[in-house]
Amino acid sequence: MKLWSGRFDKPTDKIIEEFTASLDFDKRLYKDDIAGSIAHAKMLAKVGIISTKESDALQSGLSEIYREIDSGQFSFDIGDEDIHMAIERALIDKIGSVGGKLHTARSRNDQITLDLRLYLKKEIVIIATLIKDFQAILSEKCRISKSAMMPGYTHLQRAQPILFSHHLLAYFFMLERDFNRLKNCFLETDVMPLGSAALAGTSFPIDRDFVSSELGFSKISDNSLDSVSDRDFVVSFLSSASLLITHLSRLAEEIVLWSSQEFGFVVLDDAHATGSSIMPQKKNPDFAELIRGKTGRIFGNLMAMLTVLKGLPLAYNRDLQEDKEGLFDTIDTIKPAIVVIGSAIQAMTINIENMEKAAGTDFSTATDYADYLVKKGIPFRAAHEVVGEIVKDCIAKNKDLSELSIDDLKNFSNDFDADALELHSIKNSVDSRTSPGGTAPISVEEQLAKSEKILKSEEEWLSTNEYTS
Amino acid sequence: MKLWSGRFDKPTDKIIEEFTASLDFDKRLYKDDIAGSIAHAKMLAKVGIISTKESDALQSGLSEIYREIDSGQFSFDIGDEDIHMAIERALIDKIGSVGGKLHTARSRNDQITLDLRLYLKKEIVIIATLIKDFQAILSEKCRISKSAMMPGYTHLQRAQPILFSHHLLAYFFMLERDFNRLKNCFLETDVMPLGSAALAGTSFPIDRDFVSSELGFSKISDNSLDSVSDRDFVVSFLSSASLLITHLSRLAEEIVLWSSQEFGFVVLDDAHATGSSIMPQKKNPDFAELIRGKTGRIFGNLMAMLTVLKGLPLAYNRDLQEDKEGLFDTIDTIKPAIVVIGSAIQAMTINIENMEKAAGTDFSTATDYADYLVKKGIPFRAAHEVVGEIVKDCIAKNKDLSELSIDDLKNFSNDFDADALELHSIKNSVDSRTSPGGTAPISVEEQLAKSEKILKSEEEWLSTNEYTS
Amino acid sequence: MKLWSGRFDKPTDKIIEEFTASLDFDKRLYKDDIAGSIAHAKMLAKVGIISTKESDALQSGLSEIYREIDSGQFSFDIGDEDIHMAIERALIDKIGSVGGKLHTARSRNDQITLDLRLYLKKEIVIIATLIKDFQAILSEKCRISKSAMMPGYTHLQRAQPILFSHHLLAYFFMLERDFNRLKNCFLETDVMPLGSAALAGTSFPIDRDFVSSELGFSKISDNSLDSVSDRDFVVSFLSSASLLITHLSRLAEEIVLWSSQEFGFVVLDDAHATGSSIMPQKKNPDFAELIRGKTGRIFGNLMAMLTVLKGLPLAYNRDLQEDKEGLFDTIDTIKPAIVVIGSAIQAMTINIENMEKAAGTDFSTATDYADYLVKKGIPFRAAHEVVGEIVKDCIAKNKDLSELSIDDLKNFSNDFDADALELHSIKNSVDSRTSPGGTAPISVEEQLAKSEKILKSEEEWLSTNEYTS
Amino acid sequence: MKLWSGRFDKPTDKIIEEFTASLDFDKRLYKDDIAGSIAHAKMLAKVGIISTKESDALQSGLSEIYREIDSGQFSFDIGDEDIHMAIERALIDKIGSVGGKLHTARSRNDQITLDLRLYLKKEIVIIATLIKDFQAILSEKCRISKSAMMPGYTHLQRAQPILFSHHLLAYFFMLERDFNRLKNCFLETDVMPLGSAALAGTSFPIDRDFVSSELGFSKISDNSLDSVSDRDFVVSFLSSASLLITHLSRLAEEIVLWSSQEFGFVVLDDAHATGSSIMPQKKNPDFAELIRGKTGRIFGNLMAMLTVLKGLPLAYNRDLQEDKEGLFDTIDTIKPAIVVIGSAIQAMTINIENMEKAAGTDFSTATDYADYLVKKGIPFRAAHEVVGEIVKDCIAKNKDLSELSIDDLKNFSNDFDADALELHSIKNSVDSRTSPGGTAPISVEEQLAKSEKILKSEEEWLSTNEYTS
Repeated sequence: MKLWSGRFDKPTDKIIEEFTASLDFDKRLYKDDIAGSIAHAKMLAKVGIISTKESDALQSGLSEIYREIDSGQFSFDIGDEDIHMAIERALIDKIGSVGGKLHTARSRNDQITLDLRLYLKKEIVIIATLIKDFQAILSEKCRISKSAMMPGYTHLQRAQPILFSHHLLAYFFMLERDFNRLKNCFLETDVMPLGSAALAGTSFPIDRDFVSSELGFSKISDNSLDSVSDRDFVVSFLSSASLLITHLSRLAEEIVLWSSQEFGFVVLDDAHATGSSIMPQKKNPDFAELIRGKTGRIFGNLMAMLTVLKGLPLAYNRDLQEDKEGLFDTIDTIKPAIVVIGSAIQAMTINIENMEKAAGTDFSTATDYADYLVKKGIPFRAAHEVVGEIVKDCIAKNKDLSELSIDDLKNFSNDFDADALELHSIKNSVDSRTSPGGTAPISVEEQLAKSEKILKSEEEWLSTNEYTS
Repeated sequence: MKLWSGRFDKPTDKIIEEFTASLDFDKRLYKDDIAGSIAHAKMLAKVGIISTKESDALQSGLSEIYREIDSGQFSFDIGDEDIHMAIERALIDKIGSVGGKLHTARSRNDQITLDLRLYLKKEIVIIATLIKDFQAILSEKCRISKSAMMPGYTHLQRAQPILFSHHLLAYFFMLERDFNRLKNCFLETDVMPLGSAALAGTSFPIDRDFVSSELGFSKISDNSLDSVSDRDFVVSFLSSASLLITHLSRLAEEIVLWSSQEFGFVVLDDAHATGSSIMPQKKNPDFAELIRGKTGRIFGNLMAMLTVLKGLPLAYNRDLQEDKEGLFDTIDTIKPAIVVIGSAIQAMTINIENMEKAAGTDFSTATDYADYLVKKGIPFRAAHEVVGEIVKDCIAKNKDLSELSIDDLKNFSNDFDADALELHSIKNSVDSRTSPGGTAPISVEEQLAKSEKILKSEEEWLSTNEYTS
Repeated sequence: MKLWSGRFDKPTDKIIEEFTASLDFDKRLYKDDIAGSIAHAKMLAKVGIISTKESDALQSGLSEIYREIDSGQFSFDIGDEDIHMAIERALIDKIGSVGGKLHTARSRNDQITLDLRLYLKKEIVIIATLIKDFQAILSEKCRISKSAMMPGYTHLQRAQPILFSHHLLAYFFMLERDFNRLKNCFLETDVMPLGSAALAGTSFPIDRDFVSSELGFSKISDNSLDSVSDRDFVVSFLSSASLLITHLSRLAEEIVLWSSQEFGFVVLDDAHATGSSIMPQKKNPDFAELIRGKTGRIFGNLMAMLTVLKGLPLAYNRDLQEDKEGLFDTIDTIKPAIVVIGSAIQAMTINIENMEKAAGTDFSTATDYADYLVKKGIPFRAAHEVVGEIVKDCIAKNKDLSELSIDDLKNFSNDFDADALELHSIKNSVDSRTSPGGTAPISVEEQLAKSEKILKSEEEWLSTNEYTS
Repeated sequence: MKLWSGRFDKPTDKIIEEFTASLDFDKRLYKDDIAGSIAHAKMLAKVGIISTKESDALQSGLSEIYREIDSGQFSFDIGDEDIHMAIERALIDKIGSVGGKLHTARSRNDQITLDLRLYLKKEIVIIATLIKDFQAILSEKCRISKSAMMPGYTHLQRAQPILFSHHLLAYFFMLERDFNRLKNCFLETDVMPLGSAALAGTSFPIDRDFVSSELGFSKISDNSLDSVSDRDFVVSFLSSASLLITHLSRLAEEIVLWSSQEFGFVVLDDAHATGSSIMPQKKNPDFAELIRGKTGRIFGNLMAMLTVLKGLPLAYNRDLQEDKEGLFDTIDTIKPAIVVIGSAIQAMTINIENMEKAAGTDFSTATDYADYLVKKGIPFRAAHEVVGEIVKDCIAKNKDLSELSIDDLKNFSNDFDADALELHSIKNSVDSRTSPGGTAPISVEEQLAKSEKILKSEEEWLSTNEYTS
């Protein structure tokens, strides 16, 4: 019979038992569950609800169970429903009826959200570390490829020449936002719920601040009803993870494009590509496609959790058990995705020749011609029109801008002078875009300097919040 | 080294290998993979691409591998990437280089969609059977509780009295639509893709119709590019499953409401309810809450799959590997959900007294008073106004409609006669709603008759499409 | 005061009135609402609930209101909440208290789902017609470009040469599935709910079959509770639309790729491309990007509707009012998307030279070499390995397959004979893939023949279900 | 012809023009667009790119256009595509070719994200203000109903008695998290992108910090490529709004439950409820149902935006135009939802008698009996078992806990003494739960005190960031 079965006439139906049990997946939380229980047991003695001797018995029993689970010697029984009951039952089996004192002044309702918060705090720090490492890879890749130029694209059409490092830095700054969102999410998670009991608090003289401090939380929750039904922190994490993998999916898409024969901008390391069961020549960027594809499951996990919460009355409802699998799956997906894309970026070879060739054709310096005229006093809108005509004429004559003579240019506007013949140079174009955040080497150098400051500050935050078990 | 590694200089990086491998979850498809390979091997011999002896060797090797996996004796190695490669490698290990002939004229691209279609066809039939069984439970529950009345609700406010069986039949007809959608989805799935090879078909003189017929498909796919990149059938299934669990979630919500102390309409069997770790008196409808909550994950799986497909160029891309886990999870979720809710409905006790008491108060026959006046010639809109005034007066005087005398009624409209004193009867009200689909016993009887016809026709479809392995 | 205000002491708060009103968007349903009311009025007279004279008054009043709305002369007042009340009030204003007889034996609960079904049936037929027209464009484009070859891609890597028409036909067959899903959705929608009244049916002797037949429905709904709370048909439509726009998004992605400078496969008509406010040379495939982007909103509309329905108890709840805007937005999005992509495909120019050049490089005929060896008796897996080695060697020596001499080939396998020197020909490769559904001209010709049969059968269905108002 | 049409041979096709135009919805941004342009024009003069006179002309032209749009006198033409082009064209019409100087050193790519950020910053402050006002209503409602008790629920089963104010405070603290998330989102939005130009920055000597400070931003964006393709702030807002409306949906669900006849805990003000077109007695909580239903559309808008971003290569792509409608719809939905639910909570009447009666039955003080035994030294698990047996016995004998004599209790455990006869009192139960965050009046008083501090600090933040136009 269940530990809660006093008022029941019959045992739970097997199929209901299987359907409602969460042990299969929530056993992943055993470390956090036991850490929470040990802190709880210490507190119970501290305030005199149980004796020190009883507390010691509980704590050493729990530590033993921890070792058993950790070493794979613990045998789980689905009849125990969840990790909390599995451990409580084992504790009673091990140390006798005193084990039954552990659950004083608490409920599974506050216990599960405690476990989940402990677990997620650690995982957020791990993921944030991986982000920081990936940013460092990007920053390093920028350093070693800084002068390489490529076409900048809008609408997947060549737009203006840019530095390859400028492009990579765009991802660096996206990842900075991801890091910051995770920091905010950490703060949301870093709230100690234990002591909310079933939903209404307890009449025992508990010391919630003591438990909070034992477990490394920075504050306790304010309202017991809210505490047991709040899963905002899970949604916040899933939202942050959705944006993070969205960023990875954008880079993955670019890796797929860049490694296509049509682009030919990068060559993946053989160790990172995959072959075909039928086509002997194939070398596919499968990892990048998978990152792109796995974006879907994280969006799905976010949608799932939101759907669970919609219209749920207070306080705890069993629907909330659905908070875990999507969260775990998201964590399990995002961690290797960051590592994989980082190591692929690190190892891939850049084909600078192809990139620069692509950047130098298809009129990608046309804006420079317009800006030139503007600097001569022509309104931008008129200058744009003039250069549009030049481009149209070039297309008709199958010419490139570099092939135009000064007379050709003067046919369109008398404001073109001899120096306009240098406007087709992609190096000139890149060098000129010195506005803050722009693609000129000097601007990129500033961005790189900033990126190093950011890495430093991220490291500081991580060192403060690193999990030490 | 991989079976496709000829053109590679280095082995795959460990982390890439783990990230891209699908073996962990696609091994669930081993039956279908082997069935497909056996049909393919037969066909290769039939058209003379390999000899009968070679084909026999392939087939008996495959059968042996099937038995090994089935009995848990096969050892999977993640280095094999997926179930296809795991089996092909084992085959070559077992029967030598002739095993390498199996993959002639096919690719993993057409193979995986074949496997998935074979698998899903079986699962659709299983789920459809569970739906039919649940409908039979509902129909039976209607039979035994046919005359019980309850309040019909709109906006969760008591609206008009109805038969409890009428309410259950609403779910019967929802489930019929689910059954039909699954039938359509079965048709979408029942298309044989093998022979599409990588994406372009093959130069071998294969016989696709033979393979199709061997495997019990009703048609072959039309275009090889489409075949290897089409996952419409997965989305269609996830959409159908989303609606199905939405229906279950609506009934689950009602079970939660009905078994609350406030409603008190049903008492769940002790074997279907769950207790609390802290509150000794609790008896909770956890299974119903979980069904409601699990709705989220199926919506999430649908969103995930749609996201995967968005903007994917032809033909096969590795993103498509993400088609499986969400599908499997949906199937694993939906099957026990139907069984659990069915058995709970079957076993729960109805508190007719509470239901009828609730139906008879709060003016739920007010519409009958308005309709009465209409039958006397008053325009409905005016009659509605009159009865609204009566209700307002009753509330002010804290009276029920049954307490009104004929004079009371006449104060509001002279068209009320003595027979109006019967209008407060919920039995009269229910009995009067004889329109087709209405709640009167005679209408409900017709619906029940129809429900039996539907069950019969569902059984027929199932018997034609039942899977026999 | 509202038409339902009899029992209320106060008028509705202004902010509540605005928040709950749906008139702003449901006025789009006025045609359907009035058609439904006219059929209802006819029926009321037919069965004797009202007199023929009354019915005539109702009908001519309604027709007049229809003309007023249609010509923009009707003035809507948000205080009327919704299109039903707006029309009923106008009717009473126009023809006096007999107007109040229209709402006899019905409720807004059955009325709104009637309106929505009438509306959606028409829109489904319109969308299906647009699909068919687009398929015809694809089929025609295939006819005129049939022999053009391009690289077939998997993983966005060149895989095997294919016919351009084969590629377009993949979309033709996707669209056929879309058409069929819409047909199923039409069947789901084609059910007449009126007569379900509020939720329980009615005591008036109505003739639901008459109304159904007047309005062109093929059946009436079975259960009144289900009828007023069923929005399955909306979800089914949104699911079908999600897959449809997913298909368009895939083609849109390809148009973006093909019209990039890197691919250079197609040139969009100037009338279909868009310029840049700053870069004079830009010619962007905005319409294709927008179709890709608009995929999101349709997924969102689907997610929204599913969320609305999750956990909703029977019968009607006001949440269901949220069924309309997402549906309308989906319809308004999908119709021009089909037209736009169709006309762009029709008008775009194919650069055959670029496509065939791309198809002929990067070892895309490697599979043909492996298949050649298989035909000499080498197991496919071994042949694959041999050709993999050849490719690796070519890459190292920067050679193409066409540059290999027979001796070069024999170095890898003695089974290569002189005829192997033709294996690099993309035309030979394409011509050889004659399996059903394959890319050989003969196979594509069969697919085209089938496409014409499909178009014919679609036209037949459309002509049967075309809306004639 | 378009302002960008120089290089085009043909005008844009009408259907493409309509499909791609965003003017219909982005005209909502005119204030922000003009504010941005004025700041840009000032800066252009400040750094000497244009003359002061030119800048003045631009600024006064823009101000005039602002007044025209604001007063409804501006006529929009869909041929202008978007609000940027509409205003630029009007400017040139108004002040001549100098108007064409405005677009110097910028692009629509950086302009649109500037507009959206300016707009969203204001709206976040407005929504945060509404949250704060709603929190104040909750806090006030707590003050005036502080001693009222109700059943606390888990699994919608009565669990333990709580204070009604404790329940409302749960929402107060949820809303505090919403407020904080919006603050974080404000920070993400508060980044000035102008000067990123098309994607690569500009060669003009612009002063981005000046523009930033003119427009009230606290920092400029770091990388131009990232700036024009970043929509993280939109997703962050939609995520925050999703959680916010989820909280409202939970409260809305409770309002629906509480105002049902079964619960009878609250009576809505007549001004906030809605009637039925057919049932004269109905008084429905439509606004609450609609809030619950509208949750779906916000989830949908979030899903839509995430889908748009998935797999999008850098930098600007037209898909991003889809960022606006879902954002606007979310803002338009969330603002009245907060106001409506706030005013309904404020005006609704609490039926304390019903609430306390419900709290005092169904063994909701059972936990107190168990805790009593624990305080006598019995392990909690054993005490739970004992009380479970008592409850089972009571159910069998149809008794309430209050009816048990001390002998009855002693039959189950000798540790029960006379004072146990007070355990059934819900007042005692509530008073005893004094743990921090618990339901005892003393704990609730602390929560209320904290709520006032929170309101104060929110007001401070709002006053710093309030928009003054």
